[in-house]
Amino acid sequence: MNPQYFSLEKLAHLVQGECVGQQDLQVSGLASLEHAESGHLAFVNADKYIEPAEHSKAGALIVTEALKAQIKTQQNFIVVANPYLAFAILTHVFERKHTAKGIESTAQIHSSAIVADSAYIGHFVVIGKNCVVGDESVIQSHCKIDDDVEIGKQCFIDSHVTLTGQTKIGDRVRIHANTVIGGEGFGFAPYQGKWHRIAQLGSVHIGHDVRIGSNCSIDRGALDNTILEDGVIIDNLVQIAHNVKIGANTAMAAKCGIAGSTTIGKNCVLAGAVGVVGHINIADNVTITGMSMVTKSISEAGSYSSGTPMLESLHWKRAAVRFKQLADVPLTQLMKKLDHIQSQIESLESTRLRNNYDD
Amino acid sequence: MNPQYFSLEKLAHLVQGECVGQQDLQVSGLASLEHAESGHLAFVNADKYIEPAEHSKAGALIVTEALKAQIKTQQNFIVVANPYLAFAILTHVFERKHTAKGIESTAQIHSSAIVADSAYIGHFVVIGKNCVVGDESVIQSHCKIDDDVEIGKQCFIDSHVTLTGQTKIGDRVRIHANTVIGGEGFGFAPYQGKWHRIAQLGSVHIGHDVRIGSNCSIDRGALDNTILEDGVIIDNLVQIAHNVKIGANTAMAAKCGIAGSTTIGKNCVLAGAVGVVGHINIADNVTITGMSMVTKSISEAGSYSSGTPMLESLHWKRAAVRFKQLADVPLTQLMKKLDHIQSQIESLESTRLRNNYDD
Amino acid sequence: MNPQYFSLEKLAHLVQGECVGQQDLQVSGLASLEHAESGHLAFVNADKYIEPAEHSKAGALIVTEALKAQIKTQQNFIVVANPYLAFAILTHVFERKHTAKGIESTAQIHSSAIVADSAYIGHFVVIGKNCVVGDESVIQSHCKIDDDVEIGKQCFIDSHVTLTGQTKIGDRVRIHANTVIGGEGFGFAPYQGKWHRIAQLGSVHIGHDVRIGSNCSIDRGALDNTILEDGVIIDNLVQIAHNVKIGANTAMAAKCGIAGSTTIGKNCVLAGAVGVVGHINIADNVTITGMSMVTKSISEAGSYSSGTPMLESLHWKRAAVRFKQLADVPLTQLMKKLDHIQSQIESLESTRLRNNYDD
Repeated sequence: MNPQYFSLEKLAHLVQGECVGQQDLQVSGLASLEHAESGHLAFVNADKYIEPAEHSKAGALIVTEALKAQIKTQQNFIVVANPYLAFAILTHVFERKHTAKGIESTAQIHSSAIVADSAYIGHFVVIGKNCVVGDESVIQSHCKIDDDVEIGKQCFIDSHVTLTGQTKIGDRVRIHANTVIGGEGFGFAPYQGKWHRIAQLGSVHIGHDVRIGSNCSIDRGALDNTILEDGVIIDNLVQIAHNVKIGANTAMAAKCGIAGSTTIGKNCVLAGAVGVVGHINIADNVTITGMSMVTKSISEAGSYSSGTPMLESLHWKRAAVRFKQLADVPLTQLMKKLDHIQSQIESLESTRLRNNYDD
Repeated sequence: MNPQYFSLEKLAHLVQGECVGQQDLQVSGLASLEHAESGHLAFVNADKYIEPAEHSKAGALIVTEALKAQIKTQQNFIVVANPYLAFAILTHVFERKHTAKGIESTAQIHSSAIVADSAYIGHFVVIGKNCVVGDESVIQSHCKIDDDVEIGKQCFIDSHVTLTGQTKIGDRVRIHANTVIGGEGFGFAPYQGKWHRIAQLGSVHIGHDVRIGSNCSIDRGALDNTILEDGVIIDNLVQIAHNVKIGANTAMAAKCGIAGSTTIGKNCVLAGAVGVVGHINIADNVTITGMSMVTKSISEAGSYSSGTPMLESLHWKRAAVRFKQLADVPLTQLMKKLDHIQSQIESLESTRLRNNYDD
Repeated sequence: MNPQYFSLEKLAHLVQGECVGQQDLQVSGLASLEHAESGHLAFVNADKYIEPAEHSKAGALIVTEALKAQIKTQQNFIVVANPYLAFAILTHVFERKHTAKGIESTAQIHSSAIVADSAYIGHFVVIGKNCVVGDESVIQSHCKIDDDVEIGKQCFIDSHVTLTGQTKIGDRVRIHANTVIGGEGFGFAPYQGKWHRIAQLGSVHIGHDVRIGSNCSIDRGALDNTILEDGVIIDNLVQIAHNVKIGANTAMAAKCGIAGSTTIGKNCVLAGAVGVVGHINIADNVTITGMSMVTKSISEAGSYSSGTPMLESLHWKRAAVRFKQLADVPLTQLMKKLDHIQSQIESLESTRLRNNYDD
């Protein structure tokens, strides 16, 4: 719990920024503008944070040149082009690192498994036949690494993760606690009123630099593999069904669910709790807003949504009743009808005018 | 499995109720009106349960004075002002208590951790550096209590829970199985087409008397802490993102998801599967109905909803098509247009009448 | 990892199909049409797969008689009435079976528990008082089988599963990793601004041939039991609240949530992320489409839906604004009004015509 100190100059150097003010200021940590104290470094990312920055007790600020010019009350700065990125980089300086190496005495590792000397295997971890754990990877306590699972280098697998279904994982992959990867896909053949289980024979292939949150379920494929390409990032409680393929650098917020055999492109962003139906394709660079239901393929990059806006409940009930009625209201016909009526009236009025004129 | 018996009088005393009928009736348990047998005590909470109560085989009933007067077939009662509360209290009498104390031989506890003598630590639990477990707390098997986590008194932590990120937990907190608290928040800075991980440096602070269900994910803050105030109750499979703050006594049903940096007030109720976007504020005493999508701050107490009502699928499809068309139907203009047409017609009709009159 | 080979004739025999072509073709596995190689068997289930089948490198195909007649480029077939069912059956031939029996040395089993000799108990499993594990059941590593839980024959319980609340499980039940069954239901009595916990005294009863995915939460009942009848199949991340009853052979896709005391009939299908409110009844043979919100009982078999279709976000915003306005647009009145105006105009026009005629 002893904080570690870094000089402002050193931190500026780490993000290739310009150090302005007290070069030897000792920084003990990063903090938000609101909660920062004099030993803290905070960041300012937009004009709307100038006022909070001026009232912040932070010892120094990460800013752009333009923002620095507008903040009058502060003396110490790290000036960079992209303060948020600089902040992201500096979080790693202050993060606690896992330093232990080796295998805890209580771990159960099959004799055929290959575990790098520089890896760490926590208490009560079980590693099955033919598994591989690469250099500097950390497997936290209670993980189950089932037979034939392979884990690359510098991975971090948190406690209670279950890796099964012969899953293959690249380098620098982070998997958070209690997630299950390679579990059996939900495949059943209906026959004579019963469900006949289809044993799942595919696997899960995960690329490099993938991040998966806690309590996620990523199922093995039925025949082919479920695939997460390099750089995919996934939040907590996400469901990825069998044979889904997710393109490189796609991000998925918490509680998303992707049904079987769907392909999602590269660089997509799915906000929280989005649901995507099975057997469709989503193009690259697609954004789906929160809680949307995607029921068909998307072939064009862009932003897509579904749902209804939140309303006060009584207001909502009235609107919801009308939604039901909509089924029997031919809206486009109604518009045409109205236009038609309008022209009939104009015709009638011109007749009236003529008649009046005739008078 | 031997049932324990309590006299009706004793149970009445425990809820400060009036015992009517056979004082020494031996009660072996609580049951629903429908499934109760002669040794069981059931409760009646509203007029609509009078008929089921009259047909129930329960040996005795918890009722109000008013309900008692209407139930003709039963002789034995505990009469109270609030039967549901009395029932809630009596469930604790018949609940199996965890009585074991001490540390199971297989647990792995770091020498710097402080575990109260009256606590129970189950098999294969791992407790890291500087952890604290308070008096009479129960940590079930396979839990991972990571470095610097602190747990108060009389807590109950069920199996496979992962507590990490230096989480601090108050007294009488209950956390159900396979939940993850203090996992890394989902923070990434996009730069040049890739996601740069932001190490999460905040923690999770949980107050007293908090209840968290199974398979939940509550992430540590990025810089500041994620906070659950006293008396918060949370059901299963709930996602609480980094830097969320939840006010005292707020209840959240299963499958809710709260995105990052959102503040929810005190005494709120979120029904099942509600989604709340990040960086907003929800006032005290707000109710959100099930599966609603909250996309902006709520400043007034009240009830809020979104979504559409369930319909037979063919009906729904017609309504859904019309929802799409709505985008191009200027509803308010349409209403005005209709009113305008109405007045034009009235004008035309008066002309006709005049004309006719002129005839 | 050594593949096992089966002759085409043998495989045809296993599914009671007709073997056409090279009877002694050695098949090493099943594969999709797209990824199959010469040692693989693939299946064709519909006319739309005829072209992919003709281009597939698969060594043999499972087909119907009618499909066979249309596939010109292939020589080797297993001809059956239902290729998908035949495929489902053959997946079990190529599946890796769990063959180990007995109890791993690290498992902790209470002396009062009864574990069949033919069962397998993995590393670090904890089994409590009075538990029963039936013949040939497999309990994978790190499972927690709490006091009084009973598991039937030939069950498969994957790693990190928590079974508690005196849960009773039938035969041939499969429960995937990190699922929690029998956890405490979410029951609280509100009183004087606080939530008073209701200890849950019911259990969970699971029939035969039930399948439950990973990361599910199925809570014990408050007084009566939560019940899953025979043949129910459930995908990942599903929430089943206390006192829910699910009828035989009902299927539930990932991320569904069923609130407390709801009864769902037999042979229902709930697509992904469906939410069902508490205390309602759903009839047999009901289908609910994905992400629907079920807020009232369904008494008729059929298909039901809610939600809105996905739109490009700007289009959606316009439609969403109109949804709000709908609350104040009396749609059915509007239609009547329009009809009324139409008839007024017709009347005016006939007057005009008459007037004109009169001219």
